[in-house]
Amino acid sequence: MRSLKLTLAYDGTNYSGWQRQTNGLSVQQVVEEALAPIAPNGVPPTVVGAGRTDAGVHALGQVASVNLGGDLTASAVQRAINFRLPPEIRVIGAVDAPLGFHAQFHAKGKSYRYRIAMLPVLSPFDRWFVWHAPMRPDVDAMRRGAAALVGTHDFVSFQARGAFIRETVRTIHRLDVREAAGEMVIEVEGDGFLRQMVRAIVGSLVDVGRGQRTPESMAEMIAARDRRAAGPNAPAQGLTLVSVKY
Amino acid sequence: MRSLKLTLAYDGTNYSGWQRQTNGLSVQQVVEEALAPIAPNGVPPTVVGAGRTDAGVHALGQVASVNLGGDLTASAVQRAINFRLPPEIRVIGAVDAPLGFHAQFHAKGKSYRYRIAMLPVLSPFDRWFVWHAPMRPDVDAMRRGAAALVGTHDFVSFQARGAFIRETVRTIHRLDVREAAGEMVIEVEGDGFLRQMVRAIVGSLVDVGRGQRTPESMAEMIAARDRRAAGPNAPAQGLTLVSVKY
Repeated sequence: MRSLKLTLAYDGTNYSGWQRQTNGLSVQQVVEEALAPIAPNGVPPTVVGAGRTDAGVHALGQVASVNLGGDLTASAVQRAINFRLPPEIRVIGAVDAPLGFHAQFHAKGKSYRYRIAMLPVLSPFDRWFVWHAPMRPDVDAMRRGAAALVGTHDFVSFQARGAFIRETVRTIHRLDVREAAGEMVIEVEGDGFLRQMVRAIVGSLVDVGRGQRTPESMAEMIAARDRRAAGPNAPAQGLTLVSVKY
Repeated sequence: MRSLKLTLAYDGTNYSGWQRQTNGLSVQQVVEEALAPIAPNGVPPTVVGAGRTDAGVHALGQVASVNLGGDLTASAVQRAINFRLPPEIRVIGAVDAPLGFHAQFHAKGKSYRYRIAMLPVLSPFDRWFVWHAPMRPDVDAMRRGAAALVGTHDFVSFQARGAFIRETVRTIHRLDVREAAGEMVIEVEGDGFLRQMVRAIVGSLVDVGRGQRTPESMAEMIAARDRRAAGPNAPAQGLTLVSVKY
């Protein structure tokens, strides 16, 4: 038995998210089933993902761990999985990891990217990968609002309703708002994120960009410790898990 | 009655190409039907495209002409069509044109882009927009081969078998081979292109890049005036009609 670290890219459009569930096809299930033929007993092994991306969320660098018997090299495992995976999911890297490596518990940080298309006409090529929100935002106000979130805070106001996590303090290291060619890109890097936290942050910042909230209101959202204080979730399809740090 | 010039972007993946045909849904048909409700008599008007993109070929700037009654402004027409079009086809521009403007006959030049993914693992996000051809090409040889095609030549060797066009002399103004981040991009600009000509050029250049043909063989292909002398067609999905000049 040994542990493998897999890096995955996927177009999440047609999946119910990373995590296995009973009513919908998840990326996790597809990856586990792709591994079954090379598992010594033919049973799909459990593959643990670093982050539980929501339905419709994409990944450029999701990381997953799996314990596997057999004597295939990591790159042979990669080729074998990719051979069976549908083209919307690819293992872009596979390396041997210390025995017991756990993609979720050992993760030290993650970075996400959120894309917003601001022009009136949405490019056909972006239609599954951006939030189409035509606007002429006050980018400076958005940046000031974003600055209030950087640092260590209790982000419970940005956690999905019904989430069961009790430890809701997280550290955001970087939260950049960039604008280019009719598009706004929000990049965020932190030690970890609560469920739907990035989407709630983006939804709140867009409210600020549209003048519906003030930059100062972002600090009030944190202080309120109440999901109702923050803005709406931005749609899943604009979000991409870019990378995971260990 | 007045003439309109429409500029269109489309993801051609699920279409049988630009041109109307009996066995498959074409972009032209969908655009014409989207115009029917604003045509004075409710009958889909004929929309003429500058280039007949093949099934699976994409467009960033296809141009189309249409004669239309009614008194909607060009931008009102644009909004009305986009309201009815599926998201994989967008009218990105609409302007009034001189009466009788004909997108195909009046075109003075076109430019195309062809993308080749060269790394072993294909990104899920590129899967409908590139030719996945893992290789370490001799880019210099490809550039020398490309140079032989620039200028005015009889390109009949690069025309689809069965095409009925008899005047096969065309001028290529520019044929660039760029390499970046595991991808090769071939850009070509000319006064006009025969059926599947860009795909045959790309297929031939890839043969050169792989060392299966010499750069000098490109001139021989032209001289042969025989489709069998040139390389195979590159797959349609890597090709995009970028713009049309008038």
